[in-house]
Amino acid sequence: MLLLALSALVGGLVLLYTAYLAISVLKYPRGTGRAVEIHEFIKEGAGAYLRRQYSVIFIIVAVLTVVILVANLIAGRSTPWRSPLMFIVGAISSMIAGYFGMYVATNANVRTLNAAATRGLREAFAVAFRGGLVMGLTVAGLGTFAIASLSLIFGPSEEVVRDLIYYAFGASAVALFARVGGGIYTKAADIGADLVGKVEVGIPEDDPRNPGVIADNVGDNVGDVAGMGADLFESYVEAIISVMVIALALGASQLQNLLVLPVLVSAAGLIASAASVGIALLGKVRDPAQTLTLSSTASAVIVAVISYFISTSLLGQQIGLRVWAVVVIGLTAGIVVGFTSDYFTRKGLPPTKKVAEMSQMGPALTILSGMSYGFLSVAIPAVGIAIAALISYYLMADVGGFWYGIYGVSLAAVGMLSLTGFVVGADAYGPITDNAAGLAEQAGYGEDVRAVADSLDSAGNTMKSISKGYAIGSAALTALALLAAYVSALPKVDMAQLSLLNPYVIAGMFIGMAVPPLFTSIVIRAVSDASFELIAEIRRQFKERPGILEFKERPDYGRAVDVVTKYAIKRLVTPGIVAIAVPIIVGVALGPYALAGTLAGAIVSGLLLGLFQGNVGNTWDNAKKFIEEGHFGGKGSEAHKAAVIGDTVGDPLKDAAGPSLNILIKLMSVVALALASAFAAI
Amino acid sequence: MLLLALSALVGGLVLLYTAYLAISVLKYPRGTGRAVEIHEFIKEGAGAYLRRQYSVIFIIVAVLTVVILVANLIAGRSTPWRSPLMFIVGAISSMIAGYFGMYVATNANVRTLNAAATRGLREAFAVAFRGGLVMGLTVAGLGTFAIASLSLIFGPSEEVVRDLIYYAFGASAVALFARVGGGIYTKAADIGADLVGKVEVGIPEDDPRNPGVIADNVGDNVGDVAGMGADLFESYVEAIISVMVIALALGASQLQNLLVLPVLVSAAGLIASAASVGIALLGKVRDPAQTLTLSSTASAVIVAVISYFISTSLLGQQIGLRVWAVVVIGLTAGIVVGFTSDYFTRKGLPPTKKVAEMSQMGPALTILSGMSYGFLSVAIPAVGIAIAALISYYLMADVGGFWYGIYGVSLAAVGMLSLTGFVVGADAYGPITDNAAGLAEQAGYGEDVRAVADSLDSAGNTMKSISKGYAIGSAALTALALLAAYVSALPKVDMAQLSLLNPYVIAGMFIGMAVPPLFTSIVIRAVSDASFELIAEIRRQFKERPGILEFKERPDYGRAVDVVTKYAIKRLVTPGIVAIAVPIIVGVALGPYALAGTLAGAIVSGLLLGLFQGNVGNTWDNAKKFIEEGHFGGKGSEAHKAAVIGDTVGDPLKDAAGPSLNILIKLMSVVALALASAFAAI
Repeated sequence: MLLLALSALVGGLVLLYTAYLAISVLKYPRGTGRAVEIHEFIKEGAGAYLRRQYSVIFIIVAVLTVVILVANLIAGRSTPWRSPLMFIVGAISSMIAGYFGMYVATNANVRTLNAAATRGLREAFAVAFRGGLVMGLTVAGLGTFAIASLSLIFGPSEEVVRDLIYYAFGASAVALFARVGGGIYTKAADIGADLVGKVEVGIPEDDPRNPGVIADNVGDNVGDVAGMGADLFESYVEAIISVMVIALALGASQLQNLLVLPVLVSAAGLIASAASVGIALLGKVRDPAQTLTLSSTASAVIVAVISYFISTSLLGQQIGLRVWAVVVIGLTAGIVVGFTSDYFTRKGLPPTKKVAEMSQMGPALTILSGMSYGFLSVAIPAVGIAIAALISYYLMADVGGFWYGIYGVSLAAVGMLSLTGFVVGADAYGPITDNAAGLAEQAGYGEDVRAVADSLDSAGNTMKSISKGYAIGSAALTALALLAAYVSALPKVDMAQLSLLNPYVIAGMFIGMAVPPLFTSIVIRAVSDASFELIAEIRRQFKERPGILEFKERPDYGRAVDVVTKYAIKRLVTPGIVAIAVPIIVGVALGPYALAGTLAGAIVSGLLLGLFQGNVGNTWDNAKKFIEEGHFGGKGSEAHKAAVIGDTVGDPLKDAAGPSLNILIKLMSVVALALASAFAAI
Repeated sequence: MLLLALSALVGGLVLLYTAYLAISVLKYPRGTGRAVEIHEFIKEGAGAYLRRQYSVIFIIVAVLTVVILVANLIAGRSTPWRSPLMFIVGAISSMIAGYFGMYVATNANVRTLNAAATRGLREAFAVAFRGGLVMGLTVAGLGTFAIASLSLIFGPSEEVVRDLIYYAFGASAVALFARVGGGIYTKAADIGADLVGKVEVGIPEDDPRNPGVIADNVGDNVGDVAGMGADLFESYVEAIISVMVIALALGASQLQNLLVLPVLVSAAGLIASAASVGIALLGKVRDPAQTLTLSSTASAVIVAVISYFISTSLLGQQIGLRVWAVVVIGLTAGIVVGFTSDYFTRKGLPPTKKVAEMSQMGPALTILSGMSYGFLSVAIPAVGIAIAALISYYLMADVGGFWYGIYGVSLAAVGMLSLTGFVVGADAYGPITDNAAGLAEQAGYGEDVRAVADSLDSAGNTMKSISKGYAIGSAALTALALLAAYVSALPKVDMAQLSLLNPYVIAGMFIGMAVPPLFTSIVIRAVSDASFELIAEIRRQFKERPGILEFKERPDYGRAVDVVTKYAIKRLVTPGIVAIAVPIIVGVALGPYALAGTLAGAIVSGLLLGLFQGNVGNTWDNAKKFIEEGHFGGKGSEAHKAAVIGDTVGDPLKDAAGPSLNILIKLMSVVALALASAFAAI
């Protein structure tokens, strides 16, 4: 109990520190003029969208809460209100993290620009990184705080741990809807604004004459910031909770210690993440990308060191050292996955260079060469995760048998996710600086300010591709942990029935395999339909008000924002229902073993498509940027036109469909886990 | 023994009938003039390529034969020469089927055109369909004949059945190299010729001024005809042999009957396929597509009827009826998979229409909307196969327990593949009529002849997309049967160790999942590199000899053929070695259970990517053709340009990388099966 209280305290203190960071960002002067005006538009648009999205999600959450309560009452459970309560608290936690993080991020962009204009690179970096870290620390701090407090309030009994699953379920459901809705929004706006603006009319990106430009900027915030936050919030709490559920199966003498261990490791990661901003600002910040890499390494070292002391003092040398090794393996696997994504997508490295070169032969070879790298990029992370799982199992099974081994596999996920605070922060730094660079362009800042903003922005791009790989890698490992927790939660489990040769398992695998492509299809379709609508709206404005292009009339940004908002909200519901319905249907119709197969099939195919889509999109994006630097003919060349097409194709893959798969596989698994005993009873 | 002799007899008679068909096609007059000249070029190029490809493959086969022999000698097996003998016979069977089928197909194209010009649609259809069926019946006839004869010669003992696996291994190895090499060849030529000819210089497809045009036509034959033949030859023999291997695990009183049953069902399919050409020509042939559909339905009915009598007379009413039901379920699943592919890819149905419509907004939306349908098209076949496997298991497990059920799952694959002769024949009909239409264009035939040729060609396209779906669907089911056979062949198998929660199985699944994307990446890369070379060669010819474009000089077709040949041969080796090496490495390093996981992961991801790539490619192809009919602006419009780009992207996916995955998953499984006892011993 003391340890839980300590973890809750760490979580609470970090949240206070986050509030301090938020205030320091919000108090920073915004500057004046056109940039502030545009920033207001973005802030308003983003806030309005998120409120509408949350009001829809809230209805769904309320319905689900009632369903859970009624089910508990029918089943005659002793504390029927606790799991629905946890569910709604989980859902609200996720919404708060998303909303608050995005609020600060949309306020940080103009302040970053102002700092760049008045004080230079170091201060601008500080504002942007603090702004991003508010998101990251809210996510991780809230997760640790909530799990520790809920366990503390209700007591960490088996019953309570099982009800905690509903906290994860709530977070997961909100995450899916937010990721899908935000993804559709951001990419529809991006594609629509680009296709008419850049391709048809020939005005630059972020040009204020484009009626879709504000929608595009809003999208960066609602999709990339709020979406990524909800995604990793979910992974974070689910990894912790699945380890706790598996600990229940151990029946070991050290049960209590093994139960709180994941919470403590997360608290260690929280401290490291909170420290990162200080570390980053120790030096001079000449190259923002380098500073971010440096502080990420430092944070990883801090987690490793603190975890060592926690593990060994809690569990003794023999088991403690092994537990610590597993945490470090998880961390390392996260780094491998992240850096693989970085290699395949970073501007100027061989893959993007080759795609840029092939673009000289036209868009078909842009697409094909990009796809070739995208598929190649799947292998290393997949093998890396396989090895990490295997070693973690080995280390722990060696001292306590099978379920200890499985505990090890799940704990590796917690290790990998311990740096969530930092990763989400560095990721949110991306859209902040991207928006700042966009504002500099739109508000007509001078060459020098724009150079500073661009240098901040390009560091953000690298972090974004690393964190995308990290998000899908950790999602796969988390889903694996949830699958293990699901099996451990089945009342009577016959391992032979889980065999790869059991036709129920086989049938389940094929069905599960089909869900991620189905989901991808739905999301891509929604994005292209929504962008189709936006294109029509932008064309209409250009046609009806020819003065816009000559800077004589102001475009109606609001209507463009409205069009995209409506479409995104309309299209976010179906995919979410699919994700919740499939495991329930399989569980009821084909039983718990088929459902395990479904989860395994979905994890395998989700990891494959998630890595492919995330990486291929970023490769195309950066191949385009590489050409824009003047290679292979530079801007306006045939190669550039081809690369722009590649970038457009990649947009919904990397920012809408791909990231949604992370959540899909986790949500399916958590639904299975929550309903495990019900399926077994049928 | 009598039944085996009967099956061998049916196989032998069908091969004789095939020879008769071949002679009747070859004796048909070729006509005169330019078309014959071009046809000679194609025939020469295709023959030359295949001979070079086979000489490379033969070296690999010879090396593997020696390796197998040496391994047998070291292990001190009693008849060490039998399995290498079977291996080399399997390899040579596959090469003969491929070469002979392609020889007749390349001879049928010009004769089809001549028939169209002199005798009209019905006769032209007859020539083309007979030419295609030579390939189909060679594949199926040789498969049935060889398996029946080998079992007969050596006696169908357990030892011999296990050695028969090497026959499948030989066929599989050749199939992979042929599919990859042919796929690289055909698509590099296609893309290269199109990008320079259609896009840069603006001359029509199949224009004789294009130096790459012959290479393109050669590619249709070496890739689509020989490649598909080798692919389905492999599925065919592997499905039969894996059922036989599983039968060994039954230890039932009816062992001998259950052992020969798959051979008999295949013989029934052979009779039905051979009859199809007669059925097709019963009517008037007004619409070739309809005639093909009709004769396919008739063949399916014939198989179902004959199988009923075989099953019930061999196994009695109780088991016989169930066995028959499983065969019919397999057939039905094949039809479901094929027709799903047809729905998503047929010209004028909603998916291709929508992609054509989206093309008006530029190539990015062509690609995205196509991808959206491609991913959607995965779900129905996956669920269809899952249900077929489940019901087949149920029906058989009900009478004899677990292994009977698994026997049922594998038998469904044999049922699905019983129509191989017809399907391969109808598929080979495609390139024949495609080439005939191309020759009509190049040789300057009149509008009416070209209309006949185009009508034949468009029926061929439908059959091609159906057979592509069928090929991947049957490959997944066959690989599943091989996986089951592999497990049954492990000396001591602990089902609990095959559990989805065994970390070795999990790690294996992640590794296996990564192989199909890795493979796809290598093949796409090879195609784009090879087409890059061809583009340079074509550009060089246009530049150095400007007379070509004015019909004053003849382009050097031979050099273009050479460039592509060299590249394809060079690049076919690596992927094949990967496919053989991965199961061996996993089996040795991580053991037999991890290897089972690897196979499962590869099957799931291979089915996903195989269906996606095959269907998306055909959707783009037919969306382009839909526009060319005059919709959304027709030829030359912006929509058309966008659709051409989509088509080019789809080319290597649908005809090179995608189909290779069928073979990849089977080859990996058969390697595992062949070495099962060795892995278990380590």
